[in-house]
Amino acid sequence: MKPWSVSKSETVVDRKWLRVKEQHIVLPHGGEIPDFHLIESPDWASTLAVTDTGQIVLVDQYRHGAGRVSRELPAGMIDPGETPEQAARRELEEETGFVAEHWEHLLTINTEPARHTSHAHFYFAKGARRVAAQRVDPSEFIDVVLLDLKDVLPAITEGTILHGVHVGAIMLAVARGLISLS
Amino acid sequence: MKPWSVSKSETVVDRKWLRVKEQHIVLPHGGEIPDFHLIESPDWASTLAVTDTGQIVLVDQYRHGAGRVSRELPAGMIDPGETPEQAARRELEEETGFVAEHWEHLLTINTEPARHTSHAHFYFAKGARRVAAQRVDPSEFIDVVLLDLKDVLPAITEGTILHGVHVGAIMLAVARGLISLS
Repeated sequence: MKPWSVSKSETVVDRKWLRVKEQHIVLPHGGEIPDFHLIESPDWASTLAVTDTGQIVLVDQYRHGAGRVSRELPAGMIDPGETPEQAARRELEEETGFVAEHWEHLLTINTEPARHTSHAHFYFAKGARRVAAQRVDPSEFIDVVLLDLKDVLPAITEGTILHGVHVGAIMLAVARGLISLS
Repeated sequence: MKPWSVSKSETVVDRKWLRVKEQHIVLPHGGEIPDFHLIESPDWASTLAVTDTGQIVLVDQYRHGAGRVSRELPAGMIDPGETPEQAARRELEEETGFVAEHWEHLLTINTEPARHTSHAHFYFAKGARRVAAQRVDPSEFIDVVLLDLKDVLPAITEGTILHGVHVGAIMLAVARGLISLS
């Protein structure tokens, strides 16, 4: 199964957080796609942080794509020069004021492999505790939520936790035995 | 937590499968975002289909965003006039030649709630069996793969199954007791 060839590529959106390329694709087995759109944005990092009392550290914020409040794992774009784990630790502390004792890599995954180039890096953090106040950009309004692990599955089913990629990371942690939702 | 106001919106990409709007956002608590990008694309539907012999029906295809072959649940855009379940059934049959006996809704989720408006609808189908040949567009080269359920978690960990949103749906089916990966 061979990769596609790009015979022409025009950047139609070129901003700091988003680049869209319109590409003319030549398929390896014949045929063409005259206007494929490749969507480039920075990789991001996110943390599934759990306290010693069995609560998961989440954040509520208005998400304009969804048009509603979304309950998510703390997450953010990786800055230039940062490792994914450094970004995950920074975002956890900035968005929630929490740090954690024990960190491990959970999953690196494509956010959407068909048209998007970006990856999401998830970390699992145990022994999370609040050590500081939240410290976010003036444009960000983020509420910190400590949710009992037994309430996570209902929150997914009811659509409170609605970020598809975050659900994958949370459920993988369950499958690995890192957390239990019951 | 109030929604954002859009004071100006300019469509910078306007194609059948993708619309990108550059918006001037006025935040509810003061402040502005001068160039937020809202990414609109059709909702899609996907099926976690399992055979009576304990295999999951997957498809391998080259994904240009990822730049590599991605092993995924059969999935596709919902056509106008179609329900999500009709799209899921059609895509399963077109991409794999499989139909299934028992269908149930598994999860509807945002693909990425910050900038993307689209939703993914997942169905769980039991008693899957091949009844026809694959029937796909000339531009699509798709290999059907029957994977033992016990091999799903290694495929996620090793990055063969690399679509973040699909992982969430698969793992949710595990959490609900619909499938077992051991």
